[in-house]
Amino acid sequence: MARVSQEHLDARRRQILDGAARCFARNGFHATSMQDVLTEVGLSAGAVYRYFSGKEELIAANAAEAFTKIRAAFAEAADTTPPPTPDVLLGHVLGHVLQEEIPGGDRQAYARLILQVWSETLRNEELFQTLSDGYHGMRAAWGLLVDAYRESGMMAADVPADRVARTLIATAQGYIAQQALFGDVRVEVVQDGLRGLMSMRSQSAS
Amino acid sequence: MARVSQEHLDARRRQILDGAARCFARNGFHATSMQDVLTEVGLSAGAVYRYFSGKEELIAANAAEAFTKIRAAFAEAADTTPPPTPDVLLGHVLGHVLQEEIPGGDRQAYARLILQVWSETLRNEELFQTLSDGYHGMRAAWGLLVDAYRESGMMAADVPADRVARTLIATAQGYIAQQALFGDVRVEVVQDGLRGLMSMRSQSAS
Repeated sequence: MARVSQEHLDARRRQILDGAARCFARNGFHATSMQDVLTEVGLSAGAVYRYFSGKEELIAANAAEAFTKIRAAFAEAADTTPPPTPDVLLGHVLGHVLQEEIPGGDRQAYARLILQVWSETLRNEELFQTLSDGYHGMRAAWGLLVDAYRESGMMAADVPADRVARTLIATAQGYIAQQALFGDVRVEVVQDGLRGLMSMRSQSAS
Repeated sequence: MARVSQEHLDARRRQILDGAARCFARNGFHATSMQDVLTEVGLSAGAVYRYFSGKEELIAANAAEAFTKIRAAFAEAADTTPPPTPDVLLGHVLGHVLQEEIPGGDRQAYARLILQVWSETLRNEELFQTLSDGYHGMRAAWGLLVDAYRESGMMAADVPADRVARTLIATAQGYIAQQALFGDVRVEVVQDGLRGLMSMRSQSAS
């Protein structure tokens, strides 16, 4: 049997993951069969099952990759002094996600895949665990930044940091939903929207 | 044939809608069959098909009801002078959605149903239209409020109102996603999180 290079194995794996992502984004996780994935990537069952045991593993691998990328974008942005404000940082991190492309997919395909992952976690315990770990990791990272905002006097000190962290993650999640549904989210919308909010004062504080 | 009162018809319709909502929230739209819905509500096929032609009509009717409730909550809150700030208003409107209960469902069931609707719109044009109309209605309503914030000097005048409106809707959507996934969102989290954001200044403005 001929030896196969690691590079070739990685490229094959990538090809299968992207093809599955296109199928899930287009037709949904449940309406996609492994046969659909085989047809999409133009490979035999033997070639595909060598890498992934089934649909569950394909969507879980896509989700794990997404969290790795988000963590990297976060680490890169958070490595700045003073810490970038939420409009700048969320715009930066979300920019990576919104611009993420599934080769052969349209501008909405990646956001649609994320929506499919959310839905599927309701019935898939392993996938839920992947998502939950990713979410709690982001929540901790934002929490540390919010602590820094408060300590440097950039934010009111009486607001629990974790609640601000969850609200920033909610904004990102909501924009992913809007991109999945309507396909018209640009980074400037996120940045200007947060900047507008940051320019306000709450009634209780005025 | 005995005459049936409108009250009885309405109660039956309600019973079917709630049962379908529980099924969709629990097992997802695709994994739910009409037979599952019949079993859940304990009615015959004849009794159920008198009201709804199938799963698509059941999920669309649930979505249309949700938008009617959100619009009512919005109209009630917006009918106040001066306009309530986003932390107060979003907390109020989202409070209605988060506290919404499907009889017999758990605390996450309603949010899970909304997530199912988002996913399902990717393949169901009619449901997409219902969602799109609801979204654009909310976007217009928030846009008017943001105009009022800017005109009264409560918000920086240089931020496009529609971008703030979309960001506030994104925050609400993201909190619905978190509630669907984790079931631990309370109104105070939303309110404090927005209050924290509103207490900041963007770097470009400082």
